[in-house]
Amino acid sequence: MMIDTSLVAGENETRTADLKRDYETLGERLDRRGVSIDAIKAKVAAYGVAVPSWGVGTGGTRFARFPGKGEPRHIFDKLEDCSVIQQLTRATPNVSLHIPWDKADPAELKAKASSLGLGFDAMNSNTFQDQDGQPLSYKFGSLSHTDAGTRRQAVEHNLECIEIGKAIGSRALTIWIGDGSNFPGQANFTRQFERYLDAAKAIYAELPDDWRLFTEHKMYEPAFYSTVVQDWGTNYMIAQELGEKAYCLVDLGHHAPNANIEMIVARLIQFGKLGGFHFNDSKYGDDDLDTGSVDPYRLFLVFNELVDAETRKAPGFDPAHMLDQSHNVTDPIESLMVSAMEVQRAYAQALLVDRSALEGFQDTNDALMATTTLKTAFRTDVEPILAMARLENGGAIDPVAAYRSAGYRQKVAEIRPEVSGAGGGIV
Amino acid sequence: MMIDTSLVAGENETRTADLKRDYETLGERLDRRGVSIDAIKAKVAAYGVAVPSWGVGTGGTRFARFPGKGEPRHIFDKLEDCSVIQQLTRATPNVSLHIPWDKADPAELKAKASSLGLGFDAMNSNTFQDQDGQPLSYKFGSLSHTDAGTRRQAVEHNLECIEIGKAIGSRALTIWIGDGSNFPGQANFTRQFERYLDAAKAIYAELPDDWRLFTEHKMYEPAFYSTVVQDWGTNYMIAQELGEKAYCLVDLGHHAPNANIEMIVARLIQFGKLGGFHFNDSKYGDDDLDTGSVDPYRLFLVFNELVDAETRKAPGFDPAHMLDQSHNVTDPIESLMVSAMEVQRAYAQALLVDRSALEGFQDTNDALMATTTLKTAFRTDVEPILAMARLENGGAIDPVAAYRSAGYRQKVAEIRPEVSGAGGGIV
Amino acid sequence: MMIDTSLVAGENETRTADLKRDYETLGERLDRRGVSIDAIKAKVAAYGVAVPSWGVGTGGTRFARFPGKGEPRHIFDKLEDCSVIQQLTRATPNVSLHIPWDKADPAELKAKASSLGLGFDAMNSNTFQDQDGQPLSYKFGSLSHTDAGTRRQAVEHNLECIEIGKAIGSRALTIWIGDGSNFPGQANFTRQFERYLDAAKAIYAELPDDWRLFTEHKMYEPAFYSTVVQDWGTNYMIAQELGEKAYCLVDLGHHAPNANIEMIVARLIQFGKLGGFHFNDSKYGDDDLDTGSVDPYRLFLVFNELVDAETRKAPGFDPAHMLDQSHNVTDPIESLMVSAMEVQRAYAQALLVDRSALEGFQDTNDALMATTTLKTAFRTDVEPILAMARLENGGAIDPVAAYRSAGYRQKVAEIRPEVSGAGGGIV
Amino acid sequence: MMIDTSLVAGENETRTADLKRDYETLGERLDRRGVSIDAIKAKVAAYGVAVPSWGVGTGGTRFARFPGKGEPRHIFDKLEDCSVIQQLTRATPNVSLHIPWDKADPAELKAKASSLGLGFDAMNSNTFQDQDGQPLSYKFGSLSHTDAGTRRQAVEHNLECIEIGKAIGSRALTIWIGDGSNFPGQANFTRQFERYLDAAKAIYAELPDDWRLFTEHKMYEPAFYSTVVQDWGTNYMIAQELGEKAYCLVDLGHHAPNANIEMIVARLIQFGKLGGFHFNDSKYGDDDLDTGSVDPYRLFLVFNELVDAETRKAPGFDPAHMLDQSHNVTDPIESLMVSAMEVQRAYAQALLVDRSALEGFQDTNDALMATTTLKTAFRTDVEPILAMARLENGGAIDPVAAYRSAGYRQKVAEIRPEVSGAGGGIV
Repeated sequence: MMIDTSLVAGENETRTADLKRDYETLGERLDRRGVSIDAIKAKVAAYGVAVPSWGVGTGGTRFARFPGKGEPRHIFDKLEDCSVIQQLTRATPNVSLHIPWDKADPAELKAKASSLGLGFDAMNSNTFQDQDGQPLSYKFGSLSHTDAGTRRQAVEHNLECIEIGKAIGSRALTIWIGDGSNFPGQANFTRQFERYLDAAKAIYAELPDDWRLFTEHKMYEPAFYSTVVQDWGTNYMIAQELGEKAYCLVDLGHHAPNANIEMIVARLIQFGKLGGFHFNDSKYGDDDLDTGSVDPYRLFLVFNELVDAETRKAPGFDPAHMLDQSHNVTDPIESLMVSAMEVQRAYAQALLVDRSALEGFQDTNDALMATTTLKTAFRTDVEPILAMARLENGGAIDPVAAYRSAGYRQKVAEIRPEVSGAGGGIV
Repeated sequence: MMIDTSLVAGENETRTADLKRDYETLGERLDRRGVSIDAIKAKVAAYGVAVPSWGVGTGGTRFARFPGKGEPRHIFDKLEDCSVIQQLTRATPNVSLHIPWDKADPAELKAKASSLGLGFDAMNSNTFQDQDGQPLSYKFGSLSHTDAGTRRQAVEHNLECIEIGKAIGSRALTIWIGDGSNFPGQANFTRQFERYLDAAKAIYAELPDDWRLFTEHKMYEPAFYSTVVQDWGTNYMIAQELGEKAYCLVDLGHHAPNANIEMIVARLIQFGKLGGFHFNDSKYGDDDLDTGSVDPYRLFLVFNELVDAETRKAPGFDPAHMLDQSHNVTDPIESLMVSAMEVQRAYAQALLVDRSALEGFQDTNDALMATTTLKTAFRTDVEPILAMARLENGGAIDPVAAYRSAGYRQKVAEIRPEVSGAGGGIV
Repeated sequence: MMIDTSLVAGENETRTADLKRDYETLGERLDRRGVSIDAIKAKVAAYGVAVPSWGVGTGGTRFARFPGKGEPRHIFDKLEDCSVIQQLTRATPNVSLHIPWDKADPAELKAKASSLGLGFDAMNSNTFQDQDGQPLSYKFGSLSHTDAGTRRQAVEHNLECIEIGKAIGSRALTIWIGDGSNFPGQANFTRQFERYLDAAKAIYAELPDDWRLFTEHKMYEPAFYSTVVQDWGTNYMIAQELGEKAYCLVDLGHHAPNANIEMIVARLIQFGKLGGFHFNDSKYGDDDLDTGSVDPYRLFLVFNELVDAETRKAPGFDPAHMLDQSHNVTDPIESLMVSAMEVQRAYAQALLVDRSALEGFQDTNDALMATTTLKTAFRTDVEPILAMARLENGGAIDPVAAYRSAGYRQKVAEIRPEVSGAGGGIV
Repeated sequence: MMIDTSLVAGENETRTADLKRDYETLGERLDRRGVSIDAIKAKVAAYGVAVPSWGVGTGGTRFARFPGKGEPRHIFDKLEDCSVIQQLTRATPNVSLHIPWDKADPAELKAKASSLGLGFDAMNSNTFQDQDGQPLSYKFGSLSHTDAGTRRQAVEHNLECIEIGKAIGSRALTIWIGDGSNFPGQANFTRQFERYLDAAKAIYAELPDDWRLFTEHKMYEPAFYSTVVQDWGTNYMIAQELGEKAYCLVDLGHHAPNANIEMIVARLIQFGKLGGFHFNDSKYGDDDLDTGSVDPYRLFLVFNELVDAETRKAPGFDPAHMLDQSHNVTDPIESLMVSAMEVQRAYAQALLVDRSALEGFQDTNDALMATTTLKTAFRTDVEPILAMARLENGGAIDPVAAYRSAGYRQKVAEIRPEVSGAGGGIV
């Protein structure tokens, strides 16, 4: 444990009486609605969201990056930071790696994670940047590049990610590419997509039987006129073309303005192709803001679809959950803790929806009572449920308070050298 | 002919010398680029876009409708107006009917159209409004309604449209519905879509072998939280579920802000599911503005995809073209004439693209020259080509001038009674 | 009272014990945060939002309107419906009239309202529709029309609204126009705005000293290329040009996609020009959905600005509050009751923000704790506070349940004749 | 001259005959419209747009930057690249510097520019990045930072920019800041804007009498929940608060989706506060794509406003013009040349608008002919005018062809060392 357990215990002690009282009175109210608070708590306690290794470093924009103190130097530092999040929230048992950023000896990775009580989630490949010494550039694309050699290089990088993943116990590969175009006419949409599909099939062919392949769509950025996998429609085509182990990944910030994301989620579930999520929030584009920080009701509505599918046992429904955010002005550990709890919060709220009443209102077109049924669940303050689940799982009632009290950031800042500000892409 | 041909001839006479001169000098310039102006003209001359019967009436908004003078009273007036458009532009040989708005004896419809030199395009059903005496309301949906009887009524209306279409020589049915929801929770997305698919299959089952079924997606309006066929992804699922006679219709104004529409067109062509277009333009939403009036380059980029598919003979490529606009502040006949010419203009410009040079620039990632290749075609003023095609086909060099000179609107205004202003949906 | 008070009392009786218990335990929790629940309740109890007379009729879109049962026939029916909302929620003491829709003898209006315990809020003029017998059409604009006579007619209509308002005790005039253009070039932006300013000044010149003039901006619809008062920037220019009695009205649905509305509110407060609100919610455009139904956190963030201004006693801060929604698929009375309560909910949540802690976090750039401070207030379930305020004010603990139990809609449906479905503006 | 003039002459020679012929036949057609081609050419020839020093380096995104060959190492290399653009296009006589990126001895700067035939445009300050050794960080803001010392540092940096500008002959300062917030509640909008205004006033106070201050608004990025100068409304407030030397700068990519930018331009002209432009194009956000590459008609509509103001001699109308783009996949010199010509093209097209006819159509609400008047001008292929102006001014008929033929990039690549790919802000 990276943080002294007695410190956490001490922090919890000051909050336990109030929590018990709040849990009890909330339980009483839920009881009146016919809901068992303990059953909700049990589900929440069993619910985890993966943390991305790169999320524990301070993010940036094309204009600038302003590093914080005690930035992790490498994947082993990152794993330690991730373990703090898991220790205090008990909501993030797994870490998702990004290759080549996190490249290291698989045995060492596994040993380190294991010692910290962490597992590994999906592997993420990177063909949107050039690495030192890389023979062919991705400036004009990777899996969909006009040059066959560049496509092959990108395919092989993905195969390497699978190999590393196999060695450390991962079971999924996530592909997100920056391919697209910045000018009308720069790329032929059709031939570009054909090339993409060919390359994706080459990766899929090497996917182990018990793995899943997640492809991720994004409307724009880094390409600013068109992207190859621009929306869920194209993403769905890909999953269909590749086969039954191929699924669509939904990043909440990768859609057009005003898009009804919960509906996209419903469609993918209905057709058996929802692979999972990259959670974050956005106001303008792929802002990568903290999950639930801008539009918490939208997050709830997504979880309303997930709990609906879970309840009716939708065939093949088993989405992967991961946070994917850029922490530019906060301590990344704090943001990831709060975000993991926001995911649990939305899940708990969605579990509170009276689904049989909802179905009745839907069938009779009682729109007002249908939406009120959702709102009633959403506005229930489920914090006592989340906190009690954490407490009972060995976490902190108030993870941010415990983290600050422990002085973790200051401690690692003494070990990890200061990083100077790095300019963004514009210079 | 609704307009005196000698009047048109007289109008043309005053413009012919200049046109010939401009056609000649443009031909000279195109020749230098290796393009035969006559070949382009021949293609343009053979290119038509259907006119919607409802387009010749003044449109409105939910706030108000401000009728013009001489509004058509019924489908026979509308056909006369449509024939004026065709007479002067020679670009709109077919009319698309909307049932029940245009319901009439099929034999009379056919005779009238035939006498005016018009044919019939796709049939359009209407289950987004309640008609007088209609047993069940579409307030809460039609093909996806929770009530089986209402769905059946909507299916049967579509079957009736097919019957009428068969009688008048149509070969396609276009379905656009207003179904959706205004509140989160009002509808269960999954069950609603299941119901839609069932109903659509019931219609498809009765589709004649030589017909096509077009389904149309729309992001919002009249439903304002969700729509059943919200985007091309769902539309594509429908076409796949229904079968090989089912295709996706693209209305240029039905997308999310910033959507890359030309790319959606390319994807649907690639997967053999592009059914056709409802042309118009938009700045904010489904504004139904005149085609090419706000973003003419976007229209060109759509046609760039169409000509690309035509050139490489994409399998099954045979899209239907129709205008679908709301003329709130102009004479609808004038707007439809100008819009039909804008469609031809975009087509002519797209034909000018040097596709072999473009392919070379694409293959070598010469983005600047690739986009310049498109721009060079786009900025060519092809008006002499369009005008010469009209002249040689018996139309007007300047259709708007000829129309105004003929005083058609004033003449029908004497016959057709004045319509008083109708309030929109808000009161 | 339109609804039998004993029925309301009976409904309340079944819910009082639970409410007291919930109020008590919430009070306990707030006490721990240093907040007095009674003080919050008192503020909520004193907080009202005006109801628009037109809101009690079923709304529609340009495609269709689907009337409900028992639609109000005239302003006196509308006032009765409004009084039901006030009786059950105690949150809507005033009604806002729209002229000429609500034109009637002022003395009768006043007497009727008074007998129902209602007052009158801002007057709304209508120059976006043509009325029967109106000499000059607003098809091409009203206050900014190119024709001086039409502008004068529009000015005079507004002056008439002021006269009516004076007679019934209103103190404000709200101007929203549909003026704009549908085509690039249709209007000269500059001259059009000059004409608008001249006309607005002519109205302002006749405004009584104790009145306020509210102008409302809107990005688009019914004009679809440009609108004269397109955003808050132009609205602010107008308020500056007119004088100190002129203020900007903010309708939550009238902005560009992704706009940060709470920030616009803050800017207008800071420069002393926030006149008030038209509350509703939107997902795509001016959807006129029920307040708080799509993005309740955004509504809270707006109220966070209002409470901030209230707390620091911002000079001249005194915004008017009104609901402005279109109820297409619900009983309008139910939607307005729920929406009025959503406004109160947002206000109550905003009152719970620990403003001194927030200021501290802001000053030290502790973004995470600052936003958590807002979230903590937002996720507090304040329903017991709202319900207790209603109960103590003579309203219903659960207004929708009481309303349904009273069978009001069925009763008026027996008196008020059925209205047949009216087509929207497209036909 | 960086490129051998005989090479340019040779390139031109092969194109001169065709150009003369095209210029002649276009002149003939314009003559028929009552337009003198030579008068248009003269205006175009006198029309310049500034080039940003940073534009000649390859841009990037937060994901990656893929440098090209022969990247400029410092401001003196950049000035040489800029001079190539000017030599071939004769459209970019001035360069705009960014401090501290371009910091150098003013005398050397001036001498170098002078030797290359270049002048200096507006100075740009940078308080959105931290520089090595900078005492206080801009992580949480600059001119609006909560810390007075940080604000002072930012003010002083701007004053230094003025000093440098005075030394090299600049006459304007452009301020764009990244200040804002990423979380609701992170910043108090009102106090943040008060701080901004105070700091801006401190800069304004030191502005030389013959200088102008340009402030630039931007909806989002790098701040993703709110920005201090989020739109033109706030920008206008700033210009009003500061005084008569303060003006608003409009960057075409800094607006909300669907915003009518030409209307914003008209409003700022009308109220005497349009300072100038940063030209580029965008499809999704601040994409910084090449000017006119995505929506050339929008660019034309902006110039339609500028020519309208020029024609009617709007008081105080004297906007500054600059390109501001990010060239991620093209040779920056080529992109800047093409973009400068696109600016000239839009200007030439706008000059062709028959303004007296337009005014007539506007006054009579003939929307169709009004918009056709604009379209007729827009679709005129003015390339012969631009090319002739270049030729007569000593530039190249086809600047891209001449540039490629000269092999400039290969030559500088031999001198300037290869730059390795730099990761973006996310790592």
